[in-house]
Amino acid sequence: MAGTEPSKDVVIAVDAMGGDHAPQVVVEGCEQALAADSRLTVLLAGPDEVVTPFCERHERARALIAPEVIAMGEHPAEAVRRKRSSSIVLGCKAVKGGEAEGFFSAGSTGACLAAATLYTGRVKGVQRPAIATILPGYQSRTVLTDAGANADCKPEYLLQFAQMGAAYARIALGVEHPRVGLLNIGAEEAKGSEFAVQVHQLLAERLPEFAGNAEGGDLLAGTFDVVVTDGFTGNVALKTAEGTAKAMGKLIKDIFYGSAKGKIAGALVHGQLSGLKSSMGSEAVGGSPLLGVRGAVFIGHGSSNATAIASGIAQTAYAAQMDLAGEVAQAIGS
Amino acid sequence: MAGTEPSKDVVIAVDAMGGDHAPQVVVEGCEQALAADSRLTVLLAGPDEVVTPFCERHERARALIAPEVIAMGEHPAEAVRRKRSSSIVLGCKAVKGGEAEGFFSAGSTGACLAAATLYTGRVKGVQRPAIATILPGYQSRTVLTDAGANADCKPEYLLQFAQMGAAYARIALGVEHPRVGLLNIGAEEAKGSEFAVQVHQLLAERLPEFAGNAEGGDLLAGTFDVVVTDGFTGNVALKTAEGTAKAMGKLIKDIFYGSAKGKIAGALVHGQLSGLKSSMGSEAVGGSPLLGVRGAVFIGHGSSNATAIASGIAQTAYAAQMDLAGEVAQAIGS
Repeated sequence: MAGTEPSKDVVIAVDAMGGDHAPQVVVEGCEQALAADSRLTVLLAGPDEVVTPFCERHERARALIAPEVIAMGEHPAEAVRRKRSSSIVLGCKAVKGGEAEGFFSAGSTGACLAAATLYTGRVKGVQRPAIATILPGYQSRTVLTDAGANADCKPEYLLQFAQMGAAYARIALGVEHPRVGLLNIGAEEAKGSEFAVQVHQLLAERLPEFAGNAEGGDLLAGTFDVVVTDGFTGNVALKTAEGTAKAMGKLIKDIFYGSAKGKIAGALVHGQLSGLKSSMGSEAVGGSPLLGVRGAVFIGHGSSNATAIASGIAQTAYAAQMDLAGEVAQAIGS
Repeated sequence: MAGTEPSKDVVIAVDAMGGDHAPQVVVEGCEQALAADSRLTVLLAGPDEVVTPFCERHERARALIAPEVIAMGEHPAEAVRRKRSSSIVLGCKAVKGGEAEGFFSAGSTGACLAAATLYTGRVKGVQRPAIATILPGYQSRTVLTDAGANADCKPEYLLQFAQMGAAYARIALGVEHPRVGLLNIGAEEAKGSEFAVQVHQLLAERLPEFAGNAEGGDLLAGTFDVVVTDGFTGNVALKTAEGTAKAMGKLIKDIFYGSAKGKIAGALVHGQLSGLKSSMGSEAVGGSPLLGVRGAVFIGHGSSNATAIASGIAQTAYAAQMDLAGEVAQAIGS
């Protein structure tokens, strides 16, 4: 994360049952996160047989018994209303109740969003919480928000997304004055959809950090610290970037497996290629915060491995220690 | 292009002044295209001093004297109304008048769109012409439409984009029954924005080729032959994919220039790395058609080199020979 080192003890609730490889990789991720940060305590939410043995083995781990599990395919809002003793609901409630300062899950994004909104609660004044994702690029990192929480938006939501995104960039990227761009299809202010033109005007009037329109090509180029958009466009952009990186990764792999020469070349740069893979993959991202809810609620990629889980927990802990929700409250009040 | 070889003579108007490196690379591109296809005649549109010497040197080249040039920064609609003897306007008029069966330009996309709509004219029944781009992927190619012509859309526009995109996929990809996906933020039919849900219903009712929702990650994965969306989302997705490929290209370059070992490895796989670059870059794409206008009007990347220009002219010629406009007319009438 960023430069400043917070020096506070922190308790993070973790969804033991979230992700494609839960609970195994989550438990391993918790172990890695605990080993890396002596100020961290994990409140592990999940079925008794998963969480209790883990907590017996680790001094800084506490059990949050949650017998129910929300699966990836379930209807988010229905599931969080019905399954009150699921790991996601109890994790979110722990933040509300103050037993934990943050919650991390690699489970259903929709369920986390619904549970956080319903049970953790919004920061006062926030109209819609938004997902923020850090996109890795060439010598750059950019916060993209909303990355998928709100498919339909009003212009004023995007003003808040921009304010909250800037607050997150100050914490996560350590940038004091983030440059905020509006995702659009041209650089000029009159460009784009009617909605984009309206948002442009609003940001120009109300957001001191506003630095003009961004295009898709700016997302991984470091032109802006924060790029704001509606959750539909943001999710398409995020998944397009991930898909492109994946397709290129396969093409590169073919080069190094396709011939004897390629195999020799691959052996020579093996370390750097692994570095490329982890810097562009979900391991680097770890988790994405839900901006606008209390505490620090982060969602990880369903395909997360133990390293990605550990990284997500560390990000959640850092954001909680740096008082993400307080920064958000201040940003939208300004 | 696709498997079928058309055996017809064809005249393509080419904008000598379009692109960042015009007229030099355009003239070189025309030379390459003429050398590669003995049935092609080029109608080169541009200032006398550029086009006349070229046509004197080439038997299958004719001059279309166009003293005016529309620059990249100009307001498209205004420029095409004012500069009636620009290369873009005269190229589009040549298609309308029958002097050429297609037009290729690497100039201003907006100006080409405006000029084609105003001076070439729409295929009967088409509500809005759309830009279609072929995205290269891992062992796949996918037509994305609309890639930027229409920022604000009605659901019925997207039905036509899908029909026109399918017609183009039949020609350009040689796929008889293209699978058409709707760009959205989840696989389930009720997912996404209100607009996306409406379009989903319309496509499910009216488009036999409809194969469900696509996500950003499908664009380069070959899951669909055609992905349809509004021009705002499509343009963001296209530029995000290009930007991600560019960022990864730089990271890969660093690996092979960053160390002695890297340089040796780079020398071993030099050919394949160049292949990767050209297969993911604009050279491979060449040109993007404006679906829904008469003839075959294609727009190239402003940064096109001579090879990309030649490839764009060849694509335009192929689409004209295969009667793209006729296919579009049939597709939207069905």
